[in-house]
Amino acid sequence: MRNFFLMLVFAAAFIVQGQTQDKSQFLSPSKNLRLEFKLLENGAPVYSLFYKGKPVVLESKLGLQLQENQSLQSDFKITQSGSRSSDSSWKPVMGEVAQIRDNYNEFGFRMIQTTTERKMDIVFRLYDTGLAFRYEFPDQFNWDYFQVTRELTQFKMTGDHKAFWIPGDFDSQEYVYYETPLSGINTDGLDLNNGIGFKGPMTKYRVQSPLMMKTKDNLYINIFEAAVINYPVMQLDLDPKSFTFSADLAPNALGTLAYLQTPCKLPWRTVMVSDDARDILNGSQIILNLNEPSKIDDTSWIKPMKYVGIWWEMHVDKTTWDYAGAGNAAKKDSKGNLIPTGKHGATTQNAKRYIDFAAKNGFDGVLIEGWDVGWEDWFGKWKEEVFDFVTPYPDFNVKEVTDYAKAKKIELIMHHETSASVSNYERRLDRAFDFMQKYGYKAVKTGYVGRIIPRGEWHDGQEMVNHFNYVVQRAAERKIMVNSHESSHPTGVSRTWPNYVAAEAARGTEFNAWSTGNPPAHETILPFTRLLGGPMDYTPGIFETKMSFYNPAKTASVHTTLVKQLALYVTMYSPIQMAADLPENYERYPDAFQFIKDVAVDWDDTKILEAEPGDYITEVRKAKGKESWFLGAITDENPRTSSVTLSFLTPGKKYKATLYEDGKDAHYDKNPKSYTVKTMTVDSKTKLTLNLAAGGGAAISFVPEN
Amino acid sequence: MRNFFLMLVFAAAFIVQGQTQDKSQFLSPSKNLRLEFKLLENGAPVYSLFYKGKPVVLESKLGLQLQENQSLQSDFKITQSGSRSSDSSWKPVMGEVAQIRDNYNEFGFRMIQTTTERKMDIVFRLYDTGLAFRYEFPDQFNWDYFQVTRELTQFKMTGDHKAFWIPGDFDSQEYVYYETPLSGINTDGLDLNNGIGFKGPMTKYRVQSPLMMKTKDNLYINIFEAAVINYPVMQLDLDPKSFTFSADLAPNALGTLAYLQTPCKLPWRTVMVSDDARDILNGSQIILNLNEPSKIDDTSWIKPMKYVGIWWEMHVDKTTWDYAGAGNAAKKDSKGNLIPTGKHGATTQNAKRYIDFAAKNGFDGVLIEGWDVGWEDWFGKWKEEVFDFVTPYPDFNVKEVTDYAKAKKIELIMHHETSASVSNYERRLDRAFDFMQKYGYKAVKTGYVGRIIPRGEWHDGQEMVNHFNYVVQRAAERKIMVNSHESSHPTGVSRTWPNYVAAEAARGTEFNAWSTGNPPAHETILPFTRLLGGPMDYTPGIFETKMSFYNPAKTASVHTTLVKQLALYVTMYSPIQMAADLPENYERYPDAFQFIKDVAVDWDDTKILEAEPGDYITEVRKAKGKESWFLGAITDENPRTSSVTLSFLTPGKKYKATLYEDGKDAHYDKNPKSYTVKTMTVDSKTKLTLNLAAGGGAAISFVPEN
Repeated sequence: MRNFFLMLVFAAAFIVQGQTQDKSQFLSPSKNLRLEFKLLENGAPVYSLFYKGKPVVLESKLGLQLQENQSLQSDFKITQSGSRSSDSSWKPVMGEVAQIRDNYNEFGFRMIQTTTERKMDIVFRLYDTGLAFRYEFPDQFNWDYFQVTRELTQFKMTGDHKAFWIPGDFDSQEYVYYETPLSGINTDGLDLNNGIGFKGPMTKYRVQSPLMMKTKDNLYINIFEAAVINYPVMQLDLDPKSFTFSADLAPNALGTLAYLQTPCKLPWRTVMVSDDARDILNGSQIILNLNEPSKIDDTSWIKPMKYVGIWWEMHVDKTTWDYAGAGNAAKKDSKGNLIPTGKHGATTQNAKRYIDFAAKNGFDGVLIEGWDVGWEDWFGKWKEEVFDFVTPYPDFNVKEVTDYAKAKKIELIMHHETSASVSNYERRLDRAFDFMQKYGYKAVKTGYVGRIIPRGEWHDGQEMVNHFNYVVQRAAERKIMVNSHESSHPTGVSRTWPNYVAAEAARGTEFNAWSTGNPPAHETILPFTRLLGGPMDYTPGIFETKMSFYNPAKTASVHTTLVKQLALYVTMYSPIQMAADLPENYERYPDAFQFIKDVAVDWDDTKILEAEPGDYITEVRKAKGKESWFLGAITDENPRTSSVTLSFLTPGKKYKATLYEDGKDAHYDKNPKSYTVKTMTVDSKTKLTLNLAAGGGAAISFVPEN
Repeated sequence: MRNFFLMLVFAAAFIVQGQTQDKSQFLSPSKNLRLEFKLLENGAPVYSLFYKGKPVVLESKLGLQLQENQSLQSDFKITQSGSRSSDSSWKPVMGEVAQIRDNYNEFGFRMIQTTTERKMDIVFRLYDTGLAFRYEFPDQFNWDYFQVTRELTQFKMTGDHKAFWIPGDFDSQEYVYYETPLSGINTDGLDLNNGIGFKGPMTKYRVQSPLMMKTKDNLYINIFEAAVINYPVMQLDLDPKSFTFSADLAPNALGTLAYLQTPCKLPWRTVMVSDDARDILNGSQIILNLNEPSKIDDTSWIKPMKYVGIWWEMHVDKTTWDYAGAGNAAKKDSKGNLIPTGKHGATTQNAKRYIDFAAKNGFDGVLIEGWDVGWEDWFGKWKEEVFDFVTPYPDFNVKEVTDYAKAKKIELIMHHETSASVSNYERRLDRAFDFMQKYGYKAVKTGYVGRIIPRGEWHDGQEMVNHFNYVVQRAAERKIMVNSHESSHPTGVSRTWPNYVAAEAARGTEFNAWSTGNPPAHETILPFTRLLGGPMDYTPGIFETKMSFYNPAKTASVHTTLVKQLALYVTMYSPIQMAADLPENYERYPDAFQFIKDVAVDWDDTKILEAEPGDYITEVRKAKGKESWFLGAITDENPRTSSVTLSFLTPGKKYKATLYEDGKDAHYDKNPKSYTVKTMTVDSKTKLTLNLAAGGGAAISFVPEN
């Protein structure tokens, strides 16, 4: 859609011109959601939102602050308005469901600022479980280039809701969640060491979106955004007195948020709301709907993937990314050539071992990190020229490894760690992709650990958002899939660029190897927050959860039972899923490993059976193009009993169910590896009672019996 | 040379270990220059310089300020010292002379900072007409990455010398020169509108290097630098009380000058000095000598070039770079497609006209600006995505034009205007060069008009210096020659990358078309300043010097006579020279045009017959590989009579001399097009008297008679 008002000309739906000169009311298709929008006496636009008659967002401001004390927040008059309804559906290339319905009522207002004659549109979409709105700037003769120095959009909450929040760091989302009332949001005094050594500027009341909340009368509210293109991603600054959040965006080094040119559209701001927490989990569909359809015509090369890789072994200190040590401790001979330490992980031999393991166990791919020179210098140096993305270490024969993988029908996943030197990556990107194509790599995992170069930019700023989108678009031209780590949070752009198969953008499994780790509730919150924007490469599947397994002196551990690690393959949606543990660890637990071998990663259908943020999630998914289903149930630090009726199964059909359950004495900390595996025949009428240990889970595969 | 002290091990020259614990004296080969270097009581290094016994630089500080209040300015002790002499010569790929002698004495000091145990070397080279010195940081275990926040290098002058200075703008050198005593340096109250609409931060006592000075007792002094790699170029901040200059470098947006890692070497700082002004003009050889030898093995593809182009006609408003207008005034149809204004210069037809003209008159190349989409948006918008460097306007058929040029044996010069969006250019550079190679372009003119993106960087900062060098290196891999406009000032790096054939980096001819222009003295100063760093693409050859020729309402004009325009082909050295005026203008003056057709651009030898900065220059050059010579003489706003003995000609040999002289009534403003052309037979004993008009010149070609 080029522009809402151009669109209106063709809209067959109802037109409500002229009824919006004062306070107006607008409804979602089911009428559950109601929006109010009006101009105050000074011409300032404001909106409010109601769910089943209850206020959700109290009267909140809209607008932008621009450079040189110009602003777009008052002196407006509405010159045109209109509405339309839309109910359509579309098929994602990969996803949680085979088809997504997109059903909303849309209300648009063209406003002119009387003092400047500038035109700004505000467009609202009302879904039954969420409001979306955005600012649009039509083509106009007297106004072209502008700079946003502050976004004034507000979300005024009705009370001291419970919130699941992470600190508002413009450089990273890799934090544990705090669960407090809104009045408890305050980063002062918190230990914010996120374990990876870089951090952007923070203020004490700033938190990140998606922000999940729950009201005292059990409304679930989520503030997020969609389709962030050429604009920073949104964080939220709380006024603790009025419980009002304001959009808070990463500036560049000069304090500017965005450089824009009319015509343009800003990202959608979303407020999802329901009295059923499961609707929020399904909210990822709203986010996808708000993004543009795929720009890739032939998507046949975009495929789901289960993979293993040379990665966790570095996290557990068995091997290293670097070849010769780090920094000035790197070993070099008198000519400056690197001398190997003997601990390098990405050797030809080790790569072949993983390829063998992947082929033997039916995996699609192998990721190899640390294959390219640069790792001696990579971390925390703010150095521009670190990696060149085309030069392997002497002990990694790229031709030999790629030939070997090809013979075993295994896809290799390229790794591009940039150490956040984006200028260096962009100037080398074409050559890096040439190299991938020469050797047949069809997917790349990118990494951005460190402070951004160009220096003064942040991971969440306009330049970086543009970079992440740029890489995905260039990759699409080469038919390369992208899994980005340390990116800004995704906002459903994977609909538009389906080769953007996954991202990290939250605290993943790796933290469990060398920090205080992720608490048991962590995985029950992420689907209500980070995952709303797109798939997360969480890298589950750790069987040896205690780092003391590798080194008795170590105390770090994964804070789940082994079975919960299995359940995560269902509850943490991603079309690219890693089995992150070491091959030798899986080989010691072949019965539990069978679930990882069996579980699908792309789905025809998903049903959330029960969910409560911070407590538990139980869901089932039907494998894409197959009759088999998979169930994942997880709990937080509390044990839990879950009763499940298998009504999602095709009635009358018998299934072989394989149940992976926590042992009776299982406990995420005291006894994580206690589990049972049993099989039974079930049908759609079967009821199962699942007993989840503290920090535990349950996983079930359902395969038709004939 | 990896490191001075590694070098010493192999040096056959004298070693003077241990004699430098206190005040030490060091001499140039002829003993004309004497350096003193010592540590003060607090361990601060200082130096002084003398020429024939006279002080040139009084005791001046050395050192660096680093991040977090660390510094490298005191607490040093000298742990090692040494010296060596070197006398060698080398052949530039293209140049003013066929062979350059590199003769100096070198003195090195390894110092350790007692408080930090950091090692810093200072290395001095004494040439007979100049001092060079630099900081070097050897590999050291306890110190690797560091940030320079201020360079403390000082140059304390002995008195209130006359100076030829331009304001210290970190974004542009395109200013007219001010000729004042040092006490007159102050930008307050000056009209600093440089006519191109962008400007970096300035302070009132900051001027640019190269800085040309003359003392009251007729010493010529020039402060400059060489081999600026991975570091900002140097400007100079004056303390007007003590006549002390301090290095002043462009910071990034965070206030940091340079991000460095040991081992590394900073650029050379130079102080050239002589009682003969001609020695300063030859100082470009010192600058080249201080750069590393060519990194390009096969240089056969690097060739001198005389060219015409679609360029001046835009400056005189005959045509435009854009196709459809500028900014929001650009004409577009309802689908957003551009509607041509009919004034576009770079059409297929016009390109063919220039190719025909070039072929007919023996030129090597044709430059075509405005061929690619983007010009509607290009100027002053600080917009990142403007040009893509591969998409021609609809009226420019790149295949047809390049085929036509090929058939006529004319090289086309590609034009990459970046509008200073460096991030955009770097990410597209490989594709831009692919495009050039596809169509057979072997040279590119780059442009950087506007504020730099990444925003917060300046043209003269470390990132941009790296960019200009990066483009040249990438181009070298593709065998592409580079002529960069609006770059930071060159510092002899063209020795290392001989495909860096020319740069602008000063106020060129174009300003005469639409601003107050360049005063008559301008071209007598540039060879003492800007040209010391490398060839300048000054674009001489304007015959219709009055803009009223095109439009009676216009007052702008070139402030030279027509003949001085001819002389500039000799006095403004560049191996790539434009004949900038329109073909139809040349066709009206075929006798004068003959000099431009004849003059060489690459030379076996150069002799400066007389020179005084700000007043006059007379020099002769011998065409590379030929027996013909060319003389150029220019003067400032004052008429001048010059007596020249042709002793440079081969004795006993007869030459046909063609003399292009100002007419008796010629005057740069009142009568610029008055000229005479005459021929005569001369030999090495002939004496000529040349009468130069106000703002005038003389040009002569000497061709052996058999």
